[in-house]
Amino acid sequence: MLRFAVDAMGGDNAPQCVVDGVLQALKEAENRFEILLIGQEDKVKPLLDGQDTTNLNLTFMHAPEVVTMHDVPAIAVKTKQESSLVQGLKICKAGGADAFVSAGNTGAQMAASLFVLGRLPGVLRPTIAAYFPRLQDGLTNVVDVGANVDCKPEHLVQFAEMLTIYQRDAANIEKPLTGLLNIGEEENKGSELLKQTYKQLQEADSKKKINFIGNIEGNDILREKATIVVCDGLVGNTMLKFGESIPRFLASIFKPSIQQLVDSGKLDPEAAAITSKAFMDMFQPFDVEKFGGVPFLGVDGISIVGHGRSSARAIKNMIYMAEHMIEKKVNQHIAEALSDQ
Amino acid sequence: MLRFAVDAMGGDNAPQCVVDGVLQALKEAENRFEILLIGQEDKVKPLLDGQDTTNLNLTFMHAPEVVTMHDVPAIAVKTKQESSLVQGLKICKAGGADAFVSAGNTGAQMAASLFVLGRLPGVLRPTIAAYFPRLQDGLTNVVDVGANVDCKPEHLVQFAEMLTIYQRDAANIEKPLTGLLNIGEEENKGSELLKQTYKQLQEADSKKKINFIGNIEGNDILREKATIVVCDGLVGNTMLKFGESIPRFLASIFKPSIQQLVDSGKLDPEAAAITSKAFMDMFQPFDVEKFGGVPFLGVDGISIVGHGRSSARAIKNMIYMAEHMIEKKVNQHIAEALSDQ
Repeated sequence: MLRFAVDAMGGDNAPQCVVDGVLQALKEAENRFEILLIGQEDKVKPLLDGQDTTNLNLTFMHAPEVVTMHDVPAIAVKTKQESSLVQGLKICKAGGADAFVSAGNTGAQMAASLFVLGRLPGVLRPTIAAYFPRLQDGLTNVVDVGANVDCKPEHLVQFAEMLTIYQRDAANIEKPLTGLLNIGEEENKGSELLKQTYKQLQEADSKKKINFIGNIEGNDILREKATIVVCDGLVGNTMLKFGESIPRFLASIFKPSIQQLVDSGKLDPEAAAITSKAFMDMFQPFDVEKFGGVPFLGVDGISIVGHGRSSARAIKNMIYMAEHMIEKKVNQHIAEALSDQ
Repeated sequence: MLRFAVDAMGGDNAPQCVVDGVLQALKEAENRFEILLIGQEDKVKPLLDGQDTTNLNLTFMHAPEVVTMHDVPAIAVKTKQESSLVQGLKICKAGGADAFVSAGNTGAQMAASLFVLGRLPGVLRPTIAAYFPRLQDGLTNVVDVGANVDCKPEHLVQFAEMLTIYQRDAANIEKPLTGLLNIGEEENKGSELLKQTYKQLQEADSKKKINFIGNIEGNDILREKATIVVCDGLVGNTMLKFGESIPRFLASIFKPSIQQLVDSGKLDPEAAAITSKAFMDMFQPFDVEKFGGVPFLGVDGISIVGHGRSSARAIKNMIYMAEHMIEKKVNQHIAEALSDQ
C-alpha cells in the first residue's frame, strides 16, 4: 500500500486545511493508501481529536520545528532539520513514505527536496511547472516558473523532455506539444540563448524526445498552441504571478460598476446576482485547485508543491497527484529518457 | 510651427485610419502644427480627394515602396529606401520634420530609427516601453518590451533613467517609481544579472537619477507598486502579449454563459445587454489607444511607434504625443542626464 508523508504545517490555512484535506482524501479513496501526517503536536492533535479517525489509515508524527513562508529557503533547510518539511522528505528518502506533499514555502521545499532526495540520473536541474488556464481539453504547462533563473539551452531542453513524459504519463496527453517562448515566431528571433535552445529543441524533436512546434509568443499561451511552454524561470514566474493578479484587478472594476447599475435602478438585484455569478465562474479555468499542486520534477522521489493558498480540496488533489505519478512511473521514465543522453 | 512626418502606410487599417487620424488631429488642434503625410500616391490620394483639406496644414508626399508587417526589419530598412518609413525618418534627420509617427512594422521602425537618426549622446541602447493597465492616476510603463533581449545591468539602468525623465517631463509624474522585476522581493533574489542590476539601480537612486523601490514581482504590476517596471525585452514582450490576449480569452467564456442565461429565460435580454456593456467597459484600462503609441526612447529624434491595430484616434494621439515630447524637451533632458555619466 502506498504511503504519503503530508506536511501539516505548510500553507496559509495550515494545519486546518491540511487535516481536512487528508481526511477527505482517505475517506474518498476508501483507505486505498496510508497517510503520515507530520507537524507540531499541539497544533495538529486538537484538530484530529475532534474527528472520527478510527477506521482511517492515518498516522500522526510530531515535528517540533516549522518552516514558515518568510524563511530563507537555504537557511531554513539547514537550521530546521526537525521541521515537518525536512523530516517528511527524509522519511521518503529512507523508504518510509512514497511521496511528500506540502503547501508550504515553495523555495524551501525545492531546496530541501534537492538536498534530501537528490536528482534523478541524467537530470541537470529539477524544475517546477505551472498550469495555465485552458478552455479545451489537455493541459498548458509553463516551465520553468521560478526554480531556475539562469537557464542554459540544455536545461530548457530537459524541462521540455521531463514535461513531455509527465503530460504523457500522468495526464494522458497523447502528443504533448512544446513551444519555445520568444519575442517572435521566426527561428532567428531572440537572444543567443534562445537561438541555441531552438536548435537543441529541434534536435530533441528529431530524436522523438519531444514534439517541437517552434517559437511561440505571449499571446499564444491562452490560444493553446502548445501544451508545454518552455522559458526561463524569471519569465514563467512573472507571467504566472501577473496572470494570478488579473481576476482581482478585473473584479475591482466590474463589481462596483454592477453595484452602481443596481443602485441607480438600471439593473435589478436578481439579474445582478446572476451576472456576478457568471463573472466569477469565468475565472474557473484559472482555478489551480483542481490540480492541487505541481511536482518538483527531476528529483529522485516525489515531492508535490502546493500553492500557499491551498484549500482542503487542493491538499486532497495533491495526494491524488502523488499517487498517480507513482502508478504511472513518471520518475522511472524520466530517468530512462534523460540518463541515456 | 512644428512639423510631423506621418507614415500613411503603417498599420493594419492603413492608409484609411492614418488619413482619418491626421485630419482629426489637424482639425482638433486647429492647425497649430503641420503634417507631412507620406505614402503611395495611388493608395492615399483617393482618400484625401474625398475630403475638404483646403484649410489644413497638410502636405502629401509620394513614397513608392512600403514596408509590410511581414518584412524582416534589418532587410526592409536596407532594401526599401524609398518606403514611407525610411523616407519619413530621413526627412526628420535632415530637419524637414520634427518627429516621425508610424503604426507599421515595429521592428523595422526601430531598426530604421536607430540607423537613420542615431542614438542620443550617452545612450547605450534605445528602448521601447509599454503602457500597462492602471486604475489610479499615473502611468505604469514596463520597459523593455522587445527592443532589447540580451540586456546587461547598465542597459536596464539606463532604461529606468530614460523612463524617469519621460514620465516626469511628458506625463507630469512628480516622482516616478522604478521597480526591478524579479522572482521575489528580497535583494538577493534572481539571476546574477538581476543582482548586479539591483546594485546599479541603487547607485542611480543615490545619485537622484531615479527613485528605486527595489524588486517587484509579476503580481505587483497591476497593484501599481511602481510606475516604471524594468525588465529584459523577452519578459516585457511576453507579459505585454499575454496581457493583450486576456480580454478575448475571458470574453469567450463570459459571453456564451450570458447568452445561455438569456436563452434559458434566467436573464432578460435588456439586463444581459447592460451587463455585457459593463463587461466590455471593464477592459477600458487595457485601452492603449488613449496614449496612441510609445516613443522609441534614446534615439536622436522623435519616433513614435504605434500598435499595428491602431485606429484613427490612436494615430491622432500619437501626433499629440510627438508634439508633447518636443515641447517638454524630453530628448534634451535624456541626453543631459545620460551623457554626464
